[in-house]
Amino acid sequence: MRILGIDPGLQTTGFGVIDAEGPRLAYVASGTIKTAAAARGDLPGRLKIIFEGVSEVAERYGPGRASVEIVFVNVNPQSTLLLGQARGAALAALVSRGLPVSEHTALQMKKAVVGHGQARKEQVQEMVKRLLALPGLPGKDAADALGLAIAEAHAGHALAALAQATTLARRTHAQYRRGRVY
Amino acid sequence: MRILGIDPGLQTTGFGVIDAEGPRLAYVASGTIKTAAAARGDLPGRLKIIFEGVSEVAERYGPGRASVEIVFVNVNPQSTLLLGQARGAALAALVSRGLPVSEHTALQMKKAVVGHGQARKEQVQEMVKRLLALPGLPGKDAADALGLAIAEAHAGHALAALAQATTLARRTHAQYRRGRVY
Repeated sequence: MRILGIDPGLQTTGFGVIDAEGPRLAYVASGTIKTAAAARGDLPGRLKIIFEGVSEVAERYGPGRASVEIVFVNVNPQSTLLLGQARGAALAALVSRGLPVSEHTALQMKKAVVGHGQARKEQVQEMVKRLLALPGLPGKDAADALGLAIAEAHAGHALAALAQATTLARRTHAQYRRGRVY
Repeated sequence: MRILGIDPGLQTTGFGVIDAEGPRLAYVASGTIKTAAAARGDLPGRLKIIFEGVSEVAERYGPGRASVEIVFVNVNPQSTLLLGQARGAALAALVSRGLPVSEHTALQMKKAVVGHGQARKEQVQEMVKRLLALPGLPGKDAADALGLAIAEAHAGHALAALAQATTLARRTHAQYRRGRVY
């Protein structure tokens, strides 16, 4: 399963693409979509760059699902509103292509990548490098996006393992019942 | 010039289409895009409905430009974040089609439609009905969207009138200067 991670932002949107097969992860691509080309006050222009950038990444790498960071309210309400719009444009690019989208908080991502939710940015970069066997440290935005893809891969793997364990437990239970009844 | 007005919202997005030729306005269409079909917590699903609904309206009526309400921060930061994402998805649908987008506040819209910024929703509905010679009152969300299209038509008309007045003033000034110099 190919997974696209997106860390949305009005100035910089990080993206990361990985292939996940059970617990095995492989790096495919990562980078950032920057909106500096649009004039400072031109919000529609910035959203256009985000929408088209995310569309292009999805088109090029053909992921089977996407994982997007859940953003939280900022101390500055105006920043919250702007970040919300950036996230809306990025999500629109994913869902308009019919991609299933999962949402993860930064805490969940850090837990999946580093093992605890209080990890610093540098620790995320270092662990993403190790988990994906990268030759160097990824940039911070790209590392977060790759981390979101890894969190989604872990969640999928955990679900599959859980489903397997449940099936096994049901079978054992059925055998147990059969043994008792017959 | 055909103008599409959009009043974005996570539950209900209003749209209104008018034709504007100088000061003359003609009603084309209006309605709402409702996201109730998506499950309550399914934000990507709601954004998909908004993106596809706005895309469909733009496709069907072929406006030359769009006018979108500038939203403000809410007392509830979480609502601000959700509204921002709805607006981002609606704007993405417009800018991804290459439509020029103008932004107007509710105050500017009410001034253009009713004459003052403190107008109530009902006054906006009543004046939109009169200005566009509608047989009945439009719904509140559709009325706001039509009002945004009207505000954009007025702004365009005012700009055109200003450009005409400037040209006239320049010509008069040039004639005056010619008369004095030669």
